[in-house]
Amino acid sequence: MLCVGLDPDPARFPDSIERSPVGALDFCRRIVDATAPFVCAFKPQIAYFAAMRAETELEKLCEHIRDEHPDVVLVLDAKRGDIGPTADRYASEAFDRYGADAVTVNPYLGLDSIEPFVTLAAERNAGIFVLVKTSNPGSKDFQDLQADGRTIYQHVAAGVEQFAARTAAGDAYGAVGAVVGATWPRQLDELRDTMPHTWILVPGFGKQGGRAADVRGAFHPDGLGALVVSARDVIFAHARPEMNAGLSNSQWHTAVDRACRDMIDRLAADTPAGVLRK
Amino acid sequence: MLCVGLDPDPARFPDSIERSPVGALDFCRRIVDATAPFVCAFKPQIAYFAAMRAETELEKLCEHIRDEHPDVVLVLDAKRGDIGPTADRYASEAFDRYGADAVTVNPYLGLDSIEPFVTLAAERNAGIFVLVKTSNPGSKDFQDLQADGRTIYQHVAAGVEQFAARTAAGDAYGAVGAVVGATWPRQLDELRDTMPHTWILVPGFGKQGGRAADVRGAFHPDGLGALVVSARDVIFAHARPEMNAGLSNSQWHTAVDRACRDMIDRLAADTPAGVLRK
Repeated sequence: MLCVGLDPDPARFPDSIERSPVGALDFCRRIVDATAPFVCAFKPQIAYFAAMRAETELEKLCEHIRDEHPDVVLVLDAKRGDIGPTADRYASEAFDRYGADAVTVNPYLGLDSIEPFVTLAAERNAGIFVLVKTSNPGSKDFQDLQADGRTIYQHVAAGVEQFAARTAAGDAYGAVGAVVGATWPRQLDELRDTMPHTWILVPGFGKQGGRAADVRGAFHPDGLGALVVSARDVIFAHARPEMNAGLSNSQWHTAVDRACRDMIDRLAADTPAGVLRK
Repeated sequence: MLCVGLDPDPARFPDSIERSPVGALDFCRRIVDATAPFVCAFKPQIAYFAAMRAETELEKLCEHIRDEHPDVVLVLDAKRGDIGPTADRYASEAFDRYGADAVTVNPYLGLDSIEPFVTLAAERNAGIFVLVKTSNPGSKDFQDLQADGRTIYQHVAAGVEQFAARTAAGDAYGAVGAVVGATWPRQLDELRDTMPHTWILVPGFGKQGGRAADVRGAFHPDGLGALVVSARDVIFAHARPEMNAGLSNSQWHTAVDRACRDMIDRLAADTPAGVLRK
């Protein structure tokens, strides 16, 4: 149930990693190799790569994930959104250029801006995650406004569930998922009910304030239905005293491994995902 | 008042232009040089460059615009939006990497997701354009929902106008503008009134259905306040019979020049921007 977010912020790299695009690739690749046996997905955040002119390194990272860890889902976090022909290009960026299994999409422009992603995803046997209720405090500004007795995020969720049901065919889940922040336990409960065919990607765990018990509602009773994201708590675990005890600087990836197992233990203890372990 | 949208779709390039990243740079550079004397802004659409692995060419195009045409505003159309630290990276991508004078931003995540763009824009003497009411039919799905007696796009517009007023200081306009589609004349009227300090970027003119008279409402009576975008009608003018008459294939940029002047004539005739010509 754990999705590791790959946000390569050079200022927070371990000392042994070069603060450069090549260093970012090396850093992410070692995290990927250390955690792949335990996780269900990797989520590179394209903004970090774009800001440091590292698209080539992001391509190599994606290729590495696909080639070496084909069972782990590759979610490109890009939050793209644009009208028809431009949305086609963004979909192609995600699925053709980076070979992602899924990409995050912003719904503000409406359902016809989401459709091109759904279409290309279907051709590539891939999927998308649409922003529904984001983890940040400001998500209340527009997402929580009430229209016709429902919040805006509930309107978006209804559109997402329609796409999900349509693409699910006979399966339990469709190819269109939702992003709902770990900081909103009540909304996770509610949205799990109203979006039965929808995988929920849950960021905001850890540093942003969400705890394991808070994300319980994102899961179905069988332990499926949610991917819980941890980024900074896991990838920068070398800087966490409770994770780096007894380690030398060059053993930073052992701290990553510890943080990853710790998070899985906590999710297994406090959410329905624990049943999958037994 | 004219902003030329640079959407380099290789399938629509003139025959003499190579269908490659280098061709895209050549194509855009020649359009820029042909139209710079008549226009107020260029708006490269990053999705086209990203889909063809042409970030380096986009950097060169931006550098060319800044160096050769410093009086023309460079708007990077990226429609980015993310939470705090990630929004910082996207802002840096736009302002530091590409040296844009402005970038388009998606407001779905809320005001705290817009703030990092406003902050870095202030440091770089740049600005942003926030999506308010987009030109596509699907913009009605969420933007037109009514909450507390106002549509969602009006709620967003109120936030944008606050940012604009705050950054205007004593000037007429602030550093935060709005995107409102040419396909919505009534909303342009209304939003011009409710966002007095806000530059309005108006896409959707031409191929998407907007006409010169439709964008009249985006301007203040003094002819300022709006940048009207034309992309495909201008940059692919070589394929328009009314623009390519008497031209050989290699004279495609003359068709671009004609289409650009034609659009300015129509805007001058049917909008307050005409007063600036006199």
